[in-house]
Amino acid sequence: MSNFGFSVLRVVNPYDVAFREARSAVGAAAVLESATEHPDLASAIADCTLVVGTTAVGHRELKHPVRRLEYGARLIRRAAGPVALLFGSEKFGLSNDDLSRCHWLMHIPTRDEHASMNLGQAVALCLYELARDPQAARKAPQAMRPASAAELERLTELLLETARKSGYVNPRTAASTEEKIRRLVRRLNLSERDAAVWFGIFRQIAWKLDHHN
Amino acid sequence: MSNFGFSVLRVVNPYDVAFREARSAVGAAAVLESATEHPDLASAIADCTLVVGTTAVGHRELKHPVRRLEYGARLIRRAAGPVALLFGSEKFGLSNDDLSRCHWLMHIPTRDEHASMNLGQAVALCLYELARDPQAARKAPQAMRPASAAELERLTELLLETARKSGYVNPRTAASTEEKIRRLVRRLNLSERDAAVWFGIFRQIAWKLDHHN
Repeated sequence: MSNFGFSVLRVVNPYDVAFREARSAVGAAAVLESATEHPDLASAIADCTLVVGTTAVGHRELKHPVRRLEYGARLIRRAAGPVALLFGSEKFGLSNDDLSRCHWLMHIPTRDEHASMNLGQAVALCLYELARDPQAARKAPQAMRPASAAELERLTELLLETARKSGYVNPRTAASTEEKIRRLVRRLNLSERDAAVWFGIFRQIAWKLDHHN
Repeated sequence: MSNFGFSVLRVVNPYDVAFREARSAVGAAAVLESATEHPDLASAIADCTLVVGTTAVGHRELKHPVRRLEYGARLIRRAAGPVALLFGSEKFGLSNDDLSRCHWLMHIPTRDEHASMNLGQAVALCLYELARDPQAARKAPQAMRPASAAELERLTELLLETARKSGYVNPRTAASTEEKIRRLVRRLNLSERDAAVWFGIFRQIAWKLDHHN
């Protein structure tokens, strides 16, 4: 909850000892400290204008619309008032009475062969999907600035010089070797910064080749 | 892993006792049974053509491209060969040596104030994002068939009849009351099936009102 910025935790009829002794993850103490206890579901959701239950579909015939997490999260983000997202116990899930108090249900798209999930993981997935940024899937937010043609050519020239000094270039096939190396460098998809580092490496190698002979 | 259809688990230099005594979640025994142990990271990732490290950005200056999960998962889905997704220990994450063996890094978009995550939850989120269907966010897969205008009007007529029989309709304002109820019914967004159920309920009420008077 704390990872994705959700702070209101309401616990319905918890097993007292476990709840009192529960310890929060590092950095998430505030969530647990401000959690409230409720004798029943109705009082826990009283102020909510949208109530969404979570379910591993398939266990029983559901008489409610069931939405995949991807779509359900979109509807929840658009809701006007406070939204309750209900999770049942790890062992039994939500009861039919709980489900009947929901506007609709949401399920996580697991494999059909393995639909039951760890409670903590299910909560994390739902809150991640709510906090997720669909735009972020479309572009690299920290894309490296790619090297320009001039920077690549500068590196290529140095690389060719180094190759010649090392004896790699056969004079009879020099022209095709040069073209090959030029293409190889373009396929490296170098960033501006990495191109500069490679330039430094080869300049040192070229210098050493000069002072070795 | 099993929830989202991932089956190859490779464990690098595990603490022997913990690994031997590890118990899988219900239904996921196959993943743990087929897990392989490796003395170092290099041997664990030897056959992979793309190696992606996971990190809670911010702990150290990262000298590698870092991609948000939403975008990174897209790149991983497009990869041609086997992909390794690396997770470090819960306490320390991946070492700088581990990170230097990655093609790039991926981070989960948590709040800046609370970036460190539970390992099991982090793994679940990454695999969910990989298995996630972007199309599913755009349309309700199990949308109910909405009631037609004729069905809504049939229900409205019955409701008006019931309202009249109950004495709700003041004859002087009958016309505006009818319009109000007609609009109320349209705003219910009824499905075909639910409209039929409401029709049954009001037919019974109307019958009872007749046999009461």
